[in-house]
Amino acid sequence: MTPPEHPQTPTARRSAQTATLAEIAREAGVSAPTVSKVLNGRADVAPATRNRVEELLRTHGYRRRRAEASRSPLIDLVFHELESAWALEVIRGVENVARQAGLSVVLSESAGRLTPGRTWADQVAARRPHGVILVLSELDESQRALLTSRSVPFVVMDPAGDPGTDVPSIGATNWQGGLAATRHLVELGHTRIGAITGPSRMLCSRARVDGYRAALETAGLPVDVGLIKTGDFHHESGYRLGLELLRRPDRPTAVFAGNDLQALGLYEAARELGLRVPDDVSVVGFDDLPVARWVGPPLTTVRQPLLEMAEAAARLVLELGRGEGAAAATRVELATSLVVRSSTAAPGVAES
Amino acid sequence: MTPPEHPQTPTARRSAQTATLAEIAREAGVSAPTVSKVLNGRADVAPATRNRVEELLRTHGYRRRRAEASRSPLIDLVFHELESAWALEVIRGVENVARQAGLSVVLSESAGRLTPGRTWADQVAARRPHGVILVLSELDESQRALLTSRSVPFVVMDPAGDPGTDVPSIGATNWQGGLAATRHLVELGHTRIGAITGPSRMLCSRARVDGYRAALETAGLPVDVGLIKTGDFHHESGYRLGLELLRRPDRPTAVFAGNDLQALGLYEAARELGLRVPDDVSVVGFDDLPVARWVGPPLTTVRQPLLEMAEAAARLVLELGRGEGAAAATRVELATSLVVRSSTAAPGVAES
Repeated sequence: MTPPEHPQTPTARRSAQTATLAEIAREAGVSAPTVSKVLNGRADVAPATRNRVEELLRTHGYRRRRAEASRSPLIDLVFHELESAWALEVIRGVENVARQAGLSVVLSESAGRLTPGRTWADQVAARRPHGVILVLSELDESQRALLTSRSVPFVVMDPAGDPGTDVPSIGATNWQGGLAATRHLVELGHTRIGAITGPSRMLCSRARVDGYRAALETAGLPVDVGLIKTGDFHHESGYRLGLELLRRPDRPTAVFAGNDLQALGLYEAARELGLRVPDDVSVVGFDDLPVARWVGPPLTTVRQPLLEMAEAAARLVLELGRGEGAAAATRVELATSLVVRSSTAAPGVAES
Repeated sequence: MTPPEHPQTPTARRSAQTATLAEIAREAGVSAPTVSKVLNGRADVAPATRNRVEELLRTHGYRRRRAEASRSPLIDLVFHELESAWALEVIRGVENVARQAGLSVVLSESAGRLTPGRTWADQVAARRPHGVILVLSELDESQRALLTSRSVPFVVMDPAGDPGTDVPSIGATNWQGGLAATRHLVELGHTRIGAITGPSRMLCSRARVDGYRAALETAGLPVDVGLIKTGDFHHESGYRLGLELLRRPDRPTAVFAGNDLQALGLYEAARELGLRVPDDVSVVGFDDLPVARWVGPPLTTVRQPLLEMAEAAARLVLELGRGEGAAAATRVELATSLVVRSSTAAPGVAES
């Protein structure tokens, strides 16, 4: 089997060879220019007609030909939420690649929902960018069909859920990162190591905590579920769950905080309880945001190459748009690396 | 005198009433459709022709009519640089207003140059967004003419230089912020107060340090120029200049750090020298980035309502596009406010 030319729509490609714009028009009982108007996102089509045409485009898996010429010089970048310095690194990466390609970046926020709204998909279909990059965001079936019918390729970065094997995606080696963070603590001599995870619906979060478990198990240490707290990757949950962990009579001597923001929340919890980092509790983050170097003490963390991941996502989506390379199951994972600073040390005198 | 309809181009408006597209075409020795192509940013016009037409559009101050209908549903947002969490607040503000208006946000970075490149201006002229918001970025004369000829309104946010009285702009009360920060330190009993400023070419930076001087002078305290260091608003300059200040035999007991990133650099310098904040040195920042609450000790700072400023800039540019309100000299300044946390205290025992 040869890989399909446009990996995200293997079914679409097959039927695209038979269903033409004229056939769609005939079946919808409208003129070919009307189908064109729908494809171009023009407003002067009756909603009922438009829905009928969209439905036929979808069922026939229609794909626009010669898309290159009619594309806007834009790349769409969609965030689940624009809340952390995390997002800025991603924006810079995409912007770097876009600028070199003479393209501009359109930014959207799916505003806390994991799937961007219908209006967004319509706008994208109308402006036909060179590609769409989704960050921790997902497309539903009809949105994928809409983009596919306009030959707009898309790539998912660090997917929150399972993107499916036919969606190209870029991520980091989250499991290895969780493993490296926890091994570092084990090697320092810690035996009671807590964890604060991200939301369990996000694969990256699951992978990190699985790496944490694997490190404990391979070191022959017990996994105490009471020491694993489920957070949401925000500062507040690091603080709140940090208080829970550090108030225990058998409190952990080290915590893998899931990400940098939760690590900073944990710092605050420790300060409030009069505990010192790393003397009383060692802390490891994940991401290596700029702030990780600036806090006191500077944070030991797992570096995720966010800028490079975003650049890779942008290059991949442009390649897909040109019909180059990239097999169906493209999943690129860039390596994470442990950055040891001053927030980790051997278990303190309080324990000995 | 009545204010001109489009404040940024009082001269343009006068001549627009005489020079039509047909006249421009005649003078350029080309057809009217060719002038249209240039206006629409189409690639199929010879460079020499294009330059001639652009020059005539500029000298005649031509302004496209009925621009509303042919606009893309976009707002352009241009940053000087996308480096700090600062930028993210601004993006969120513009995105909020854009989403409500059914528009998407195109993001560009002028990559360290204060004036975005020529390619950028061409792209904007071609896509004709509803408006352009420039953050710490400036347009040169030809770029302003290019946007004006396409009836693309623009607003400058927190200008780096003097935007001129005919460019609408949004800022914060930087002078009052510098005054409030320094008065707070004076009221705590400090008499040797240092300052780390931003780049002197940025008005916001000048205004802050002028507020600092005013606070000292009105309190009858001498202004010691040896205690005023010129930084660049990055963490590194706070660290480096912080070391210079804190290594002096007559070191200041408090420092107004110019912005939050420099304040964090100063924290690092203090740690390195074994000085405690606020016991040995009080620190005040400016901006109130999310991280200001999270560092240890939480940072006393001047809150700049970045999100609200960005929302105001977006609303203003949309109003200008509709030809509403907004007089020529529109300059909106939103109020700053002092947020007192734990990085400031009375001069410590080390001094007494």
